[in-house]
Amino acid sequence: MAAVKACNILITGANRGLGLETVKQLLENSCQKHIFATCRDPDGPKSEALRELARKHPSVITIIRLDVDDPCSIKESAKKVGSLLGNNGLNLLVNNAAIVARGTIHTSRVEDMKNTFNTNVIGPLLIIREYLQYLQTAAKASGTPGMSCNKAAVINISSVAGSMTRKPSNHIQSTVLPYSMSKAGFNTLTVLAAEELKADEILCMALHPGWVKTELGGEKFQLQSWRSRVTVEQHSCGTKHRSPVPTRTSHSFFPLCNPEHFY
Amino acid sequence: MAAVKACNILITGANRGLGLETVKQLLENSCQKHIFATCRDPDGPKSEALRELARKHPSVITIIRLDVDDPCSIKESAKKVGSLLGNNGLNLLVNNAAIVARGTIHTSRVEDMKNTFNTNVIGPLLIIREYLQYLQTAAKASGTPGMSCNKAAVINISSVAGSMTRKPSNHIQSTVLPYSMSKAGFNTLTVLAAEELKADEILCMALHPGWVKTELGGEKFQLQSWRSRVTVEQHSCGTKHRSPVPTRTSHSFFPLCNPEHFY
Repeated sequence: MAAVKACNILITGANRGLGLETVKQLLENSCQKHIFATCRDPDGPKSEALRELARKHPSVITIIRLDVDDPCSIKESAKKVGSLLGNNGLNLLVNNAAIVARGTIHTSRVEDMKNTFNTNVIGPLLIIREYLQYLQTAAKASGTPGMSCNKAAVINISSVAGSMTRKPSNHIQSTVLPYSMSKAGFNTLTVLAAEELKADEILCMALHPGWVKTELGGEKFQLQSWRSRVTVEQHSCGTKHRSPVPTRTSHSFFPLCNPEHFY
Repeated sequence: MAAVKACNILITGANRGLGLETVKQLLENSCQKHIFATCRDPDGPKSEALRELARKHPSVITIIRLDVDDPCSIKESAKKVGSLLGNNGLNLLVNNAAIVARGTIHTSRVEDMKNTFNTNVIGPLLIIREYLQYLQTAAKASGTPGMSCNKAAVINISSVAGSMTRKPSNHIQSTVLPYSMSKAGFNTLTVLAAEELKADEILCMALHPGWVKTELGGEKFQLQSWRSRVTVEQHSCGTKHRSPVPTRTSHSFFPLCNPEHFY
């Protein structure tokens, strides 16, 4: 995230995996910024690494409780962040939190399908809704035309598992039907939200981060034909590669839509 | 559906709209067949037209209760249909039942998003799961290689509202975000189910029926830029036009994927 010059940034699921690594890489950047690092359970054992990071950088990181599955928690987080944001608004909203569920036509569980849709689609929609006012403030405050991640943007961390053209080729080896269906819904949310936010010059796009060794990505995947896995530390989190369209082989995010708007 | 020569056919949501019209047009075909016309409430007032049709064609139509939202109802219907099917199995499963819900980022209701996903995605997946054994029987019994609607097929009645490339252009005029997200999930289900069913030579594809004046399609839509509406009686229900890839302007279904496998 070295290239991101946005001032106020919010990331969901920031306590582990790609979310935590994104926070770390944003800290490498010398630009003055504030990061609202959100997670479901800021005081729990799975958030220790994030708390440690926040202790080291108290003026840059504020940890906020945000449970993507809970509309009340989303509303409360937005109120709190709103009270802390300056007149510049929120420049960058990263919908990173997600869950995975595996299954085929035969084995996919109804509860898994419902849960992945709730967490991966409905939650991000409600987050965009509640934080939109702050993104609009940032867009107006920027004074520059056009769209960019440094002005006002929603970045949805999605997956090629939700791509109807790319996923079928490896579905039999990696059956994550509930996850794929939810990510397809998420990608649709992205392209339609992009239409709605266009008038405010707020960028909205989806990125595929590649396949990374995280709690979500798993240790046991053996899908070498798709791409080799990288650890989260090896991952560039998107913006070390300054190419407007990062390639699939660069071990960085690559855009699933609107590539011309990424930077 | 004049071109369909399949023997045993099951259609969900067969009591009204496109489902009912599909049953009617299948009756025009002189081929010997049996139609399992399923709906949520076979004895209710909204099923009167279907009951009337079944009274006129008692040897062709069997009405079966199937509530797409209820996994138990899906299982029970499959048991009943299984007991009525001969050794030829089920040739054609048409997942037609669906609900629509409108909304934008600001107005989409959580309940609407959950309900559309349940009815339009989870339900059809469970239906494919429960009826797969009968489709496999039909595929084996056919004795012919390759795939076709007349051998063993799942046809998912979807919508371009779930297309990430087509929908954005008219999203602002016709905001059906919950419906679009569910249909994107449904399209993903289709392409991934197609992969799983390929080994059994069972065809699986999604069709967009065009915009039709039905209870779901509505009377008030004024989206002349998309395409002009047709009544359900004017609709060819897909197969009067024998072209392998019916066009968008032909007022018939057009395939959203796998067009080469349609017939």
